[in-house]
Formats: sequence, C-alpha cells, structure tokens
Amino acid sequence: MTAEHLPKSRQEAIDRDRADPLSGRRDDFLGLDGTIYLVGHSLGVVSRQALDRLSQAANGDWAGDRVGAWNSAGWIDLNHRVGDRIAALIGAKAGEVLVADSVSINLFKLAAATLPLAHARRLMVETTEFPTDQYIAGGLSDLADVPVDRLEADAAFDALATGGVLIKSAVSYRTGEIADIAAFERKAASTGARIVWDLSHATGLVPLELREDGARFATGCTYKYLNGGPGAPAFLYVRDDVVDQLVTPLPGWLGHARPFAFEHDYTPADGIVRFAAGTPPILSLASLDGALDVFDGLDVSHLLEKSRSLGDLCLARAASLSLTADVPRDRAKRGGHVSLCHVEGYGIVRALKARGIETDFRAPDTVRMGFSPLFLRYVDVWDAMDALSDVLETKAYELPEFQTRETVT
Amino acid sequence: MTAEHLPKSRQEAIDRDRADPLSGRRDDFLGLDGTIYLVGHSLGVVSRQALDRLSQAANGDWAGDRVGAWNSAGWIDLNHRVGDRIAALIGAKAGEVLVADSVSINLFKLAAATLPLAHARRLMVETTEFPTDQYIAGGLSDLADVPVDRLEADAAFDALATGGVLIKSAVSYRTGEIADIAAFERKAASTGARIVWDLSHATGLVPLELREDGARFATGCTYKYLNGGPGAPAFLYVRDDVVDQLVTPLPGWLGHARPFAFEHDYTPADGIVRFAAGTPPILSLASLDGALDVFDGLDVSHLLEKSRSLGDLCLARAASLSLTADVPRDRAKRGGHVSLCHVEGYGIVRALKARGIETDFRAPDTVRMGFSPLFLRYVDVWDAMDALSDVLETKAYELPEFQTRETVT
Repeated sequence: MTAEHLPKSRQEAIDRDRADPLSGRRDDFLGLDGTIYLVGHSLGVVSRQALDRLSQAANGDWAGDRVGAWNSAGWIDLNHRVGDRIAALIGAKAGEVLVADSVSINLFKLAAATLPLAHARRLMVETTEFPTDQYIAGGLSDLADVPVDRLEADAAFDALATGGVLIKSAVSYRTGEIADIAAFERKAASTGARIVWDLSHATGLVPLELREDGARFATGCTYKYLNGGPGAPAFLYVRDDVVDQLVTPLPGWLGHARPFAFEHDYTPADGIVRFAAGTPPILSLASLDGALDVFDGLDVSHLLEKSRSLGDLCLARAASLSLTADVPRDRAKRGGHVSLCHVEGYGIVRALKARGIETDFRAPDTVRMGFSPLFLRYVDVWDAMDALSDVLETKAYELPEFQTRETVT
Repeated sequence: MTAEHLPKSRQEAIDRDRADPLSGRRDDFLGLDGTIYLVGHSLGVVSRQALDRLSQAANGDWAGDRVGAWNSAGWIDLNHRVGDRIAALIGAKAGEVLVADSVSINLFKLAAATLPLAHARRLMVETTEFPTDQYIAGGLSDLADVPVDRLEADAAFDALATGGVLIKSAVSYRTGEIADIAAFERKAASTGARIVWDLSHATGLVPLELREDGARFATGCTYKYLNGGPGAPAFLYVRDDVVDQLVTPLPGWLGHARPFAFEHDYTPADGIVRFAAGTPPILSLASLDGALDVFDGLDVSHLLEKSRSLGDLCLARAASLSLTADVPRDRAKRGGHVSLCHVEGYGIVRALKARGIETDFRAPDTVRMGFSPLFLRYVDVWDAMDALSDVLETKAYELPEFQTRETVT
C-alpha cells in the first residue's frame, strides 16, 4: 500500500476495514473487546475453534475414553496430522512437518542431526539472533565438541562460505526483517553449508515456500501468529529427500519405528516421525489443531499484505512522533512487527497498556508492535497511534506507576 | 493385607470399599461409570480439578488477559510452582523440582549434566529398562562420544562399581518391582557413580524419600498416577546442594538467569530453573496443576498400601487361572501394577475391553493391570477378575474381533 492509499482519518480506517476481505475472521477470536492487541507476534489470541478442540480433547476424549483415546481420538498421530496442516502454510509437503517439543529442543535436534551432512563440522549463529538460538548452539558445541562461530549482525550470508551449519531466523525477532531464504540456500548449496531455519516470527504470516526455496531444515513456534495457545508445542520440518539420512540426538520412544513393540534397540521411524521424542502434550496440541482451522482456505500472502498495510499506517503516523523506527528500509523485507525505539520504551509500553493498548518491550529501549492480520483492524492501529501520540505528548510514561519494573514477556 | 483379610465375595469387597478412607476421592474423577479402569499406570483419569484449572487457563486467563497472563495468571513460574507440589510427593524440597519437557528429554539433560560429576565417564542402562531410557542413553553416547554399558536385568547394582552414570527406573514398567533407592545410592556414593532415576511408574503412588535416600537426580512422568492429562509435561529433580554445579546440554532461553534481558551469552538461572529450555505447554501444565489438588492432604504411603491390597486381591484370584504372574516375589517390592502373562494376552486385553474392563498389553504376552488407589474400588477388582475368569473359561480371546491388531498404547 503506497502512502497515498493509507487511511487519513479514523473514518477512512473504518471504511478500509469494511472493505477488508479478512475482516470476518476477527469474529473467530475471543476476548478482544476493550483492547487493542498488538502482541500477536508474542502470544496469539484464543479462537473459538481452539477452545472447542481443547474441550473435545479434555472433556470429550480424555474423560470419555481415557487411554483408549490414543486410538479412538487419533492422539497417536496428532503430532504429524497437525504437522501436515502447518506444512500447507510454509510451502512443505504433507509428511515433512512434525509437531514436537519446543523451538529450543528442535533447534538442538536439527543442528546436531545436520552436522554430518555439512561440508564443515562447525556451527554458526549471529549475535543478533534470538537468544535461545545462540544458547542452544553453545550447548551443542560444548556437548559434541563442535566449534561455534558467533557472527556479527548480517554476517551470516558470507559466513556460509565456510560450509558449516548456520542457525538463522527467517524473520528477525528485533527488526522484523525477512531473510531471503532462497538466496541463502543457493549460497549454502554452492559451499556445502546447511541452514536450520527458525520460522518462529514467520509462520502463519509470511508466505514461505520452503521446498521451492531449497530449504531442508526448519523449526518454528506455533503460539505466535498461529494462535496455538501459550507454550503450544513447536514444529519441525525436514525435506523428505534428506530426512532418512538424519539421526536425531534425542531418540525418544515415540520416534521409534515400532514404539509399542518396546524393542531394546533404537530403530528410527521412517521420515519426520523419527524426530518425535517423548509423549506430546495432547491438550496443548489439541488447542493448536483447533487454532489452525482459522487458516483454512486462506492465502498466506494476503495475510502478510494486510499486516504490512497495518504496519505502514503505524509507521506513517509514527514518523511525526519522537521515536526511531528500527525496521528494514526495504518494505519488501518487513515482516509482521515493527520496532519503535525510545529511551523511555518501558514506561511507554506500560502507559499504553493502561489505555488498553497492548504492545511489548524488548530491552533496552524497544517498543514492539505486531500486526496480526486475522484479528486486527485498521481502526485499531489508528486508535493505538492516537494513544501513543498522547502518551508521548503528555509524557505519561514518566508516571511512577508506569516505571515500576515487573516481568515482561 | 494378608490373604485371610482379602474379600472372599463381592459383598465383602463392597464392605471393604465402605470402610476405605480413600473411597471419597473417587468422586473427584469423571467418566468412570460403566468401566473398570486398570490402566492408570499408563494414562490417569480426568478429575474435576484438572478440567477446572484447564478451563481457567484457556477460557479465563488466555482469553481474558492474553500475553499479560504470563504475569497476571502466574504462568511464568507455573513450571516450578507445580514442581514444588510434586516435590512434596517425592520427598524433595521446594525448589528442587521443575516441570519441563518429557521424560525422554529430561533423561538426556540429566545424564549429560551428571557425567562430569561421576567417577567414570560412561553411561549404564539395563536392557530390561523402559525403551526410551535405553534409546536416550544411546543418543547421548553417540553425540557426546561416551561409552554406554548395556547391562543385563538386575545387573545395575553391581555395575555401579565402575563409577559411571546409571539410568534406572524406580519401578519397573514390566514387573512393577520397586528398586531400593537408598541401597543404590549408598553403593553409588562408595564408588563415585551417579544415578539418574526414572520415577515414571512411581510418582503419586510409591512413597518416595529422595533426599533422605540420597538421590541426587531424577525425572518422572505426570500422566500416570498423577492424572495430569495425556502427554502432560514431565518433571525433573536435582538435589539443591548439587544443582548449581550442573550445566544443561539444552540451554534454552527460559533457563537463563534473566530470560527477558535477551542477553547474547548464556548464564544459567540459579537452581533447578536452569533446566527449563523452551516455553512450557501451559494448557497441559494447568491440567496437571489441577490434577494435583486431588493429592492435597494425602499420605502417599496410604496410596501404595491400598494399591497393593487391590493387587493382592487380583493375584489371589489369578492364582486359580491359567496365567503366570510376573511380579516381584517379595510383596514389599511390588509397585502399583501387576503383569499377568498368557500367550493369548493380546486377545485377552481386547475381550476384557469389550466387557468394559480396561487393561493394557505389552508385547509379547503381558496383560498389565494397574491399581490406581484414588479411583479404583475393591469391587472393581472383584468384577474384573470375574470377567477375566470368564474370558479364559470361554476362550473369548479367540474370537476374531479380539485378535485384530491395532495400535495399543
């Protein structure tokens, strides 16, 4: 959306919402009255479908058939059935995605399993990467005695020349910048490097084409734009032509070819299921399964386009305020959230919250605003920027009640 | 309970239930009408408290405060608050138990972290151990280049002489035999060996005194006798005087000393929280939290005593049937389930299920019956044994509909 097409008034924002083909999806979500929720990039919002599926799993299946529900309710393969639904959103094939564990654990599995396939036995991660990605690289390095290169910001592309294993986010948790997966994979292919993609801030928002772009390994979070629920289990992807070469470092019983034969020796299951370890948290997984219903029939490219338009509106109005935007210069590289920097960022987030506007703070000075296109409206962004403008003008962030620190997620 | 005190008739079983101080707890559980559930050692039964807490977390906290619920609903420390409740059931102190991940993942964390503290750098596991314990030992062995000794049944005690790290179940998943934790730990202390206990079939049933018995490291499952829910997250225990010496091989961001400072370098949190990795599955964790309400005010030794009495009744009646009991000879070593072996075990389990009696099958020939004392009655065991007797007499297990294989959990 070019600047001249942005709403210039609250009424124009309302009109834009009326014309928005995605506006009907907002009705699927609960709890949004009286709040403007700009933190969907951190924790998504509950949908009727998520609650329904959760209730079915607990009050229906567990209460009704107990251990029998592993078969009767299909819990036993829910991890890859839900994986197939996510595959459809990230440009993967059915059978290439498994829901399991957390992003941290899956990064470990994939980085360890990928090392023998890389040209060089070394790990690489940028120091601007999400912390868990850096810590897991360090943990694997210490345990398996593999060197790890801690790269400067934006140094990853060139570092692929060494042929090691790079852990890299597809969308930066700080700036929201989208990496060019295809370009990275072409470079990696030319050097024998391998890349484990962290799709946490991309999945359910950025139209990914993992197979087409040559990506072999990825994991991602399901509680952000997918709205799976707090701590909903993560997923992992391995391209089907390489998966059977991989050995997981965490060979749990549910990744065995015949888990219920209780064999002494480990034989990996065919395909992606080998990356299952212990028993998945079915209630959390059921909520995620329901949450994915909201995506049925949607084109992910429309999600990013609307999200960017909402971000454009935010940035256009922020331009006149005393904040610095830390966003990619190239709009085509901008993901679903924007970072606005201000030395009083913490107080600003608290003051906005008191006005019913939810944003999040990332130390030392960043106010993040995320634009989940399934439930956010143009008028929400308009009103949020009105509130931000007021907070800055009145210096409300200096009030003592907004300065007191508490845990911020 | 000696043989002469066992109920000799259905009426005596009913009378025994009337006198049972635990009988009131059955009212907390749902879905038990029309079924006799002897699989609580595999997946526990849903309680009102679990459903209430789950609904509060989803419909209340998530829907009501979204990402704010990490603070307002206390999700951020739910993993160790629930851990403290489990600590009280296993003879640990508050602050020594964390709920996280699965038993498989926690075995990996603990075994890897414990290796530097053992006298010898080697892993040990019996070939009769639960498969995931064996597979994880193998995975760690391959990744970290540590030898693993695959021990024969009952060889673990003597193998402690080598001074390595032993992975050992406190209650055997096959025979239900309870290990003498104190004796193992005394032996380990004398040789510099270290033991990682798998408490999956013990927690919530066997009165454990981990600290008193000298145990330093343990993990366990919460979806069996604790009734936490399908795939409810596991817990791990580390004695507080050793935890700060340990380095987790899976350093996720939530185990960092300051996770929300987003620091580049990993600094472990003080104490048990360092073993947190990714974001825990809050909905599954909430269900577990509610399920633990049922244990409030209970003495775990009473749970084991009732469970054993139910098992006594089962075994006394099984003695006249054409089955072999694979149970510890010493009653004082018997945990919550018994294994009855029959070449047609699979058909027997299916034929019992058709009569509303739920048991489980473990290849090649074992019918397991678990006696969860919180919801099972003496009359249930009486009726189950009537049904088993009938299935054997009529050879109902030979009916084709009971021979067709399906996934059995």
